[in-house]
Amino acid sequence: MKKSIYLDNAASAPILDDVVEVMADALRTLNGNPSSTHKFGRKAKAAIEQSRKTIAGCLNASIGEIFFTSGGTEANNTALHCAVDQLGVTRLIISSIEHPSIINTANYIATHQGIEVVQLTVNEHGLIHIDELKNLLEGSNQKTLVSIMHANNEIGTIQPVDQIGVLCQEHGALFHTDAVQTIGHLPFDVSTRPISFLSASGHKFHGPKGIGFLYVNSDNIIEPYIQGGSQERNVRAGTENVAGIVGMAKALSHCYEHMSEKSDYVKELRSYLIEQLRVKLPQIELVSYASSDDCLFTIVNFHIPSSAKSDLLLMNLDIAGIAASGGSACSSGAEKPSHVIEAIGNYSENGKCVRFSMSFMNTKAELDRVVDALTKYV
Amino acid sequence: MKKSIYLDNAASAPILDDVVEVMADALRTLNGNPSSTHKFGRKAKAAIEQSRKTIAGCLNASIGEIFFTSGGTEANNTALHCAVDQLGVTRLIISSIEHPSIINTANYIATHQGIEVVQLTVNEHGLIHIDELKNLLEGSNQKTLVSIMHANNEIGTIQPVDQIGVLCQEHGALFHTDAVQTIGHLPFDVSTRPISFLSASGHKFHGPKGIGFLYVNSDNIIEPYIQGGSQERNVRAGTENVAGIVGMAKALSHCYEHMSEKSDYVKELRSYLIEQLRVKLPQIELVSYASSDDCLFTIVNFHIPSSAKSDLLLMNLDIAGIAASGGSACSSGAEKPSHVIEAIGNYSENGKCVRFSMSFMNTKAELDRVVDALTKYV
Repeated sequence: MKKSIYLDNAASAPILDDVVEVMADALRTLNGNPSSTHKFGRKAKAAIEQSRKTIAGCLNASIGEIFFTSGGTEANNTALHCAVDQLGVTRLIISSIEHPSIINTANYIATHQGIEVVQLTVNEHGLIHIDELKNLLEGSNQKTLVSIMHANNEIGTIQPVDQIGVLCQEHGALFHTDAVQTIGHLPFDVSTRPISFLSASGHKFHGPKGIGFLYVNSDNIIEPYIQGGSQERNVRAGTENVAGIVGMAKALSHCYEHMSEKSDYVKELRSYLIEQLRVKLPQIELVSYASSDDCLFTIVNFHIPSSAKSDLLLMNLDIAGIAASGGSACSSGAEKPSHVIEAIGNYSENGKCVRFSMSFMNTKAELDRVVDALTKYV
Repeated sequence: MKKSIYLDNAASAPILDDVVEVMADALRTLNGNPSSTHKFGRKAKAAIEQSRKTIAGCLNASIGEIFFTSGGTEANNTALHCAVDQLGVTRLIISSIEHPSIINTANYIATHQGIEVVQLTVNEHGLIHIDELKNLLEGSNQKTLVSIMHANNEIGTIQPVDQIGVLCQEHGALFHTDAVQTIGHLPFDVSTRPISFLSASGHKFHGPKGIGFLYVNSDNIIEPYIQGGSQERNVRAGTENVAGIVGMAKALSHCYEHMSEKSDYVKELRSYLIEQLRVKLPQIELVSYASSDDCLFTIVNFHIPSSAKSDLLLMNLDIAGIAASGGSACSSGAEKPSHVIEAIGNYSENGKCVRFSMSFMNTKAELDRVVDALTKYV
């Protein structure tokens, strides 16, 4: 049987061997509670702080601006809830294609706390209209948090975070970006950008699941969303996931060391798949932006026209050993098209969208097999 | 140099070798996102559900009543916040010696949402007065959540959770118990007890840090505290910490297989230490209950009278390779006595309290060295 082909890296990117090794070592040797003052505790604490330094270095942040969370979802929750509960925010502006951990959190806050939530519209590729944001910020004096993702998880569209940040700064709004899909893949220098909060997740850049971090610009002092002990300098309570933290730092540091060569390689893969499908299966429509300037190079989304075969496409691909996705993993069990696909147009009327998300672990030979399979099943 | 002696198991219990092995294997082989429908996802999902079944089995819970969290602190936060935000609770009754993840969460809710928080007093060993609780429940019709820990983390006192549960049931109150110190050490059958919520933490029973679970009785339907995707049957969003979950289940299952022999062994160790100190250092006072019926057998707390030497006792023990604690790990960097010690009496006036917390990995020979060290430093 042929080797499986994993093209669902945006859902979870396979962990690096080096990361497993440092984690197993951390599990075995860092048995103390990092809050304990004896040597077992100090050793665990030192490993956490070294990891924080590594991650802060990658983003050009201060060490005191990085806070570990249980993942991107908790980081997103923390930014939104703390902004509303503690920083006087009474309006949340998000886009219609944010991750469920932004949309559902904003809706929860709206329901339980009566806060206004505004969803920005997007164009046919998922790009926000910057003028819509500008008008909203100009049109109200409400204390506002704008939360716009760096790149979309289903279609890859890169939002103009620099422009958004400047607009927010000009209008006294806070700016959070869910950078879960981009951290580790695209460089992100927080020191040169007007940004209040940024979320990231370890397993999206070949680190472990269950660990992430929130960048909080030092201008903003927040209390914890998860309350308790004084861990993470009183910003996130709970005994630290030491092995997860060490593993995430290792993964991020690996990504940064090889970022340029790996992104060139994956961009080439992505262009190759787009070109092969354009030539061999012209009825398949590219949903994502073609250029890697506008779309995260790890993600490409296609619209497959409806047919008896294509309705079972993902299942057939799975049987053929090819892992792709019909939406985000968080809702990939759902039959109906995702909110992202609904927001960008009428793709769902006459077919379905499929996301292929790549990493440096994939090859052109694998993509050839994908094109063959699509030829067979579409 | 002599081998170090680890007597801070209540802060974090050293991970089992078997647990590290299954976790390393899970990290390597369960690379899919458990929410993905392809085989990589299904394999990860199956491992989670198998772990849930193991854990539910240990507690005699239904599979649908166990929800994974990032640890005991998040589980405690979820129980308190969701009870107030979603279940109509307007009063929280806790004890004065709860963990900071209960006290600080209750205080946060009080500050931000104007909810009444009542702290029960405790006796000189930390036991609540059941009549005080009874009077509070009888004296008001407010919808109440009672949150009382199963055993205290600093002094080990076991609270009468069965009596508390019955009282709560009689008065229509919800009952949450923070069982972080006891799960894996004492059996806990949720099917025979009137209990709404229970929190547990993997690293307190020789599993990994950064993972825990919340038991939610099927009578209570809650929305997530961390909002986002539909993971954990819509009760806790965020990509699951697969390796952590698998490791926690392995650790708990190990604890249950050997519970009786290990508890007998550790009870014997605890009695031995108490007896040795009673004979050799009578000026050291036992703070915890002596009997393992009233005090969790892994924990014993002593009061050391003040002297030039004893003020640096923990540091001297650390130098001698002995890890003990002056309070909980969460506040062990603090100079002042913990809220638990303050609540139970005037111990802090003329000395300080030291907690030794044991596991089956300790030996009598180690305790002999501890007694020798105490003789030297007290």
